[in-house]
Amino acid sequence: MVRTPGLFWLEKRLLRMILRRLVKPVRVVLWNGEEISESVDPPSARIKVRDEATLWKLILNPELQFGEAYSDGRIELEGDLVGLLDTIYRSKTQTSESLYPRLVSRRWARGTVNTPRGSRRNIHRHYDIRTDFYKLWLDSQLIYTCGYFPSSNHSLEEAQFAKMDYVCRKVRLQPGDRVVEAGCGWGALALHMAKHYGVSVKAFNISHEQILYARQRAREEGLADRVEFIEDDYRNISGRFDVFVSVGMLEHVGLPYYRELGDVIDRCLEASGRGFLHFIGRNRELPLNAWIRKRIFPGAYPPTLRQVMDIFEPWGFSVLDVENLRLHYAKTLEHWLARFEESASPICAMFNADFVRAWRLYLAGSMVAFQTGWLHLFQIAFVRFDNNQIPWTRDYLYLGESDPKQESKWIHAIS
Amino acid sequence: MVRTPGLFWLEKRLLRMILRRLVKPVRVVLWNGEEISESVDPPSARIKVRDEATLWKLILNPELQFGEAYSDGRIELEGDLVGLLDTIYRSKTQTSESLYPRLVSRRWARGTVNTPRGSRRNIHRHYDIRTDFYKLWLDSQLIYTCGYFPSSNHSLEEAQFAKMDYVCRKVRLQPGDRVVEAGCGWGALALHMAKHYGVSVKAFNISHEQILYARQRAREEGLADRVEFIEDDYRNISGRFDVFVSVGMLEHVGLPYYRELGDVIDRCLEASGRGFLHFIGRNRELPLNAWIRKRIFPGAYPPTLRQVMDIFEPWGFSVLDVENLRLHYAKTLEHWLARFEESASPICAMFNADFVRAWRLYLAGSMVAFQTGWLHLFQIAFVRFDNNQIPWTRDYLYLGESDPKQESKWIHAIS
Repeated sequence: MVRTPGLFWLEKRLLRMILRRLVKPVRVVLWNGEEISESVDPPSARIKVRDEATLWKLILNPELQFGEAYSDGRIELEGDLVGLLDTIYRSKTQTSESLYPRLVSRRWARGTVNTPRGSRRNIHRHYDIRTDFYKLWLDSQLIYTCGYFPSSNHSLEEAQFAKMDYVCRKVRLQPGDRVVEAGCGWGALALHMAKHYGVSVKAFNISHEQILYARQRAREEGLADRVEFIEDDYRNISGRFDVFVSVGMLEHVGLPYYRELGDVIDRCLEASGRGFLHFIGRNRELPLNAWIRKRIFPGAYPPTLRQVMDIFEPWGFSVLDVENLRLHYAKTLEHWLARFEESASPICAMFNADFVRAWRLYLAGSMVAFQTGWLHLFQIAFVRFDNNQIPWTRDYLYLGESDPKQESKWIHAIS
Repeated sequence: MVRTPGLFWLEKRLLRMILRRLVKPVRVVLWNGEEISESVDPPSARIKVRDEATLWKLILNPELQFGEAYSDGRIELEGDLVGLLDTIYRSKTQTSESLYPRLVSRRWARGTVNTPRGSRRNIHRHYDIRTDFYKLWLDSQLIYTCGYFPSSNHSLEEAQFAKMDYVCRKVRLQPGDRVVEAGCGWGALALHMAKHYGVSVKAFNISHEQILYARQRAREEGLADRVEFIEDDYRNISGRFDVFVSVGMLEHVGLPYYRELGDVIDRCLEASGRGFLHFIGRNRELPLNAWIRKRIFPGAYPPTLRQVMDIFEPWGFSVLDVENLRLHYAKTLEHWLARFEESASPICAMFNADFVRAWRLYLAGSMVAFQTGWLHLFQIAFVRFDNNQIPWTRDYLYLGESDPKQESKWIHAIS
């Protein structure tokens, strides 16, 4: 093997193999200034790699190491991050992956297990980051799940309001209903339900920071008598409820616990009860991106519809409605990313530049994953199999939807 | 063992065990006039059993033998058949079954296999019964699948028109689209699409009788140049299409062939294509009722959503929308059963009294199965995973829905 200055023959060859698979030309600039490209066309992006060790890691496990190196500055990007990620996602086929992730793809199930203790640790890692940080780029109600855009030009605030109302309509809230929410974030949905639909809510969350914030908000809005925020695991839900709702928690539950979640729902849902799940999923079985799993969401996993049936089938729940809101999450993330970039300076001051790069990559990568169909957003409405108090058609969901400010019309339609 | 006149002690004991499990009192009248009951309340139904052999068969395998004995008159019913079936379905739990069906529950997969040859034989058994018979109790367009009732008081004709239009909207038909239909019945949907949406359709069916009827109708309505009815198996579909649609065929495909069906769809659907399946399913894995499988639908099986994912996941299809129309099928069957009863005399003359009883039981039993949540009707809309030409929301499905005669409004909304 002849060593070329600054780069082994093998490294170069492997790198060219990778670049050749990309649907748009990308150029790699080495630490010595040498440029590697597989196209004569002007590159859509230039990636500067700081040293040989980084290059080797990128070649062997790009899914994990791209994020690692981008976050701590060992690679620098000239050009548009979103455009590069789009090129990468569109270059992958859903059947082929690099060798390493395939070998370790099942490790997520063994690694960061979502036992009650494991879940607490995993959730703490992400959601107990100070709330001030999330205030800089989420909507005014701190809703950290996919919005619902009646049309694509609605604002993020409107989309989150519309999403909460859409959820309320999907579970057909009636005044006086007792609702249990598993995984309530900063409490926006629970408060929305109590305020606009006259229901009482018990909302569970294991993030200490979020629960404190939600309780404060309930007191400030005079809803503390009807919305109880409970710092506990979904597995400890007790009592009987007319509605079970969970928005953006299932991703953190973990496959081995789906039957247990189904058992919890079966225990707590009345015979005439309505259930609802909203979660990030896949159209086929794939592990979550290795870097996201390591750095952003330990223990997280986006399930397929097949896998989710473990929650319903053993207990005889009947799925009434499944909706895929993939492009709504892409749009939500577009808003989050734009606001994040606007606040990059204060966020950098709050943490550091590595943190900013890591979160920029996470937000941009997630947006592109939804845009390119690698991630999906499913909403599932369900009831017990023999519950005949179900809507005749779904048209009640779409009354006055085009204007999310027509709040009274929706609520009138429900009550 | 002491023999009581006309009835063994064991038989009586087993019979009482069965009667005790029913949620409403039912009385059994034996061939010698003796009456067996487990309740002092007046019975909701009285079942007269003609002989001891029939009673033993009923006790050992009620699921199969009730239908057998009811059809050929070895048991007679005093009281309401629908009410009795409702009592039976509501008395079963979704986990327990009688022993015998559980032991043989997997036999359906080995028995009447749905190879191209097996399918032809199975389909011939049911769908090649003379069309004159179906004309007596189906709607005017001979649509033998679940209707869509914008509200429960619409007529069967309106519901079938609304269903076809709902399907057209779910696949977002555009003028000029090339549509392929797998399993087209007597051709109503294919003709509706061509007539009202300006598309061309290739419609496949292996029922010779149905294909002849459909071709005749296409000629009469001047649509033969745009709708081609092909007497062939779905596995032989070739060409590329903008839309794949299949209404009421999946029940006859058989689990072992789901991947093959997915392969067919993958081969024939354009990158921007829309796919649609409409089928009878379950909320958990159970074989089709043994008697229905033997006498009415050989080779048929209602899958769960989990099982249906075999069609989508291997090919990277993305499920956009799942809707459960269970109560619409109950209502459709209510109409069919009423029309069937009105025509009981001509049907009896056409076949015989056993045939009338068998089909009455099949229609009533199916209606009750949908009413009690033992059967479900799923509509699934899907596209390729990276297809971003998907509707932003589902509100376009519900424009003017309340009046199925507002045809022009719907079509205007599409074109």
